[in-house]
Amino acid sequence: MKKGIMVGFGNVGKALAKELISLNKIEIIAVITSKGVYKLKNNWRSELNNLANEYPRGNREKIDILDLINEFIPDIAFVTIPPSYYNGEPNLSIYNTLIDNNINIITADKTGLALEFSSLMKKVKNNKLFFGYRATVMAGTPAIDVAKGLRGRNLKGIKAVLNATTNYILSLVESGYSMQSAIDKVKELGLVEPDPKIDIDGYDAAAKLSIILNTLDIESNINEIKRESLLNINEEKIRKTLNEGKRIKYIAYFDGNKKGVHLEEIEMDSQLARVSKNYNCILFNVDNDTITLTGPAGPAISTAKSMITDVLEYLEKD
Amino acid sequence: MKKGIMVGFGNVGKALAKELISLNKIEIIAVITSKGVYKLKNNWRSELNNLANEYPRGNREKIDILDLINEFIPDIAFVTIPPSYYNGEPNLSIYNTLIDNNINIITADKTGLALEFSSLMKKVKNNKLFFGYRATVMAGTPAIDVAKGLRGRNLKGIKAVLNATTNYILSLVESGYSMQSAIDKVKELGLVEPDPKIDIDGYDAAAKLSIILNTLDIESNINEIKRESLLNINEEKIRKTLNEGKRIKYIAYFDGNKKGVHLEEIEMDSQLARVSKNYNCILFNVDNDTITLTGPAGPAISTAKSMITDVLEYLEKD
Repeated sequence: MKKGIMVGFGNVGKALAKELISLNKIEIIAVITSKGVYKLKNNWRSELNNLANEYPRGNREKIDILDLINEFIPDIAFVTIPPSYYNGEPNLSIYNTLIDNNINIITADKTGLALEFSSLMKKVKNNKLFFGYRATVMAGTPAIDVAKGLRGRNLKGIKAVLNATTNYILSLVESGYSMQSAIDKVKELGLVEPDPKIDIDGYDAAAKLSIILNTLDIESNINEIKRESLLNINEEKIRKTLNEGKRIKYIAYFDGNKKGVHLEEIEMDSQLARVSKNYNCILFNVDNDTITLTGPAGPAISTAKSMITDVLEYLEKD
Repeated sequence: MKKGIMVGFGNVGKALAKELISLNKIEIIAVITSKGVYKLKNNWRSELNNLANEYPRGNREKIDILDLINEFIPDIAFVTIPPSYYNGEPNLSIYNTLIDNNINIITADKTGLALEFSSLMKKVKNNKLFFGYRATVMAGTPAIDVAKGLRGRNLKGIKAVLNATTNYILSLVESGYSMQSAIDKVKELGLVEPDPKIDIDGYDAAAKLSIILNTLDIESNINEIKRESLLNINEEKIRKTLNEGKRIKYIAYFDGNKKGVHLEEIEMDSQLARVSKNYNCILFNVDNDTITLTGPAGPAISTAKSMITDVLEYLEKD
């Protein structure tokens, strides 16, 4: 059986652990968390299940990821660490270490691909590795697959709602909340990234747009995507727009040239205006036709399940 | 440069020929039509361009496909022959001959996969061949990619409008046409298969549903898909339903158990109700979430372009 390590063990990591136990096609030999490394020594399935249920109990060791790789020589790493868009670390070092040591990767973290898609993928290709990243965009809805299925086509533009948290905040404001009370409410519900700027300043949507564009062979980097803050609008304007039969949405866009994340008035008959709850929506303009994909993004269990789709592809290719 | 042959040379084949000339990464060495074989001997790009523009001029030979393969040893075949759902021939023999002789395939024809998905794909895998079939469902919209991106998920059902011709007939009837005059009109416009039963008796939609299900690892065959004829309803019922705020649609469905193509009343707020022109729409129910893909199906140039996406994938894998 192939051997795997888990890098990161939050909600998505734990959900993935249970899916991997039930799939039973890759033996997990170690779990790396911010608190240390748990080595699974005897019955990996029950030990991993315990970790997923009882974390952070169990014996952990302080050990470097490179030492761990050299000790275990895993075939694949499952990466579910938090994003780090400001300087990319430790995420970029982790990806580079894994790839340089010929470890295949399945990730839900966007950082590496949002910052260094081309250079990482070049090394992946040279080393003939598998790099699965279905979970990075609209986790649970195959947006990456749609982008791959449009390669070589004449892409004229993209418009998308790619961040469910800010979309929910806008709908709360439409229904009467102040912007601040709406933000407080989504925080209470646990829907915001630990660093709220990731959602509210558009980093998350920009990272996803960048990954989609790179998948379509359009080189892109989160740092060149213009981001307007969600807070750059007042409540009255949002509600007035709704009364006029349109909706303000926080849109990630590419117009064939410019790339950005901004607040935009959307006509009510557009699919983008109708996105609600945990749903996302992406419109591709290809040869002046519109291809539309809508579906849920998350929760953690959906993210984990889309990583299992990556696992199936990895196991078949290998 | 890789060498390719084209099997079939109708509208899609000709559009594909022009795309392959402009891509210039696979040399086309022969074009097989129902009228004979054209061998491209000197400047393949200009000879193929002439064939695409001036067909059926040029020198053709009567030669068996197996002899042709043995003479040229092509790397890949581009199949754009008409469907043959009743007995599968000559399509199935062509696929089997190609695969048995280690020729990679990119096809827009649904026949082989609708009738023999499992056995063909098993041989493809054993021979380590590439078999691209993005163009077989919603040609131009990545429905196959979405299905691949949902592998391993808990698929509870599918509902789809997969045949634009019958969808257009229904909308004409809604606007006042009789069923017969609507059919005559789409025939005039050249939108119906040479054998109208392919569209109107649901073979086309059933073939597409079958390919989608197989892609999702649900074994399926066009012959086990129950087909209701489009004619199994009268004009009054279609218009009465519209007046009641719903629409009759010709729906391909899978409910987790039963598979079929039938006439169904669809609520107006469903994406399925809003599909018009050459657009198709497919709803996947996954873990009780709905993932929706809408986009154009055809015309020939879109079908050809989705085969070019297959080419890019083939060239990278090889």
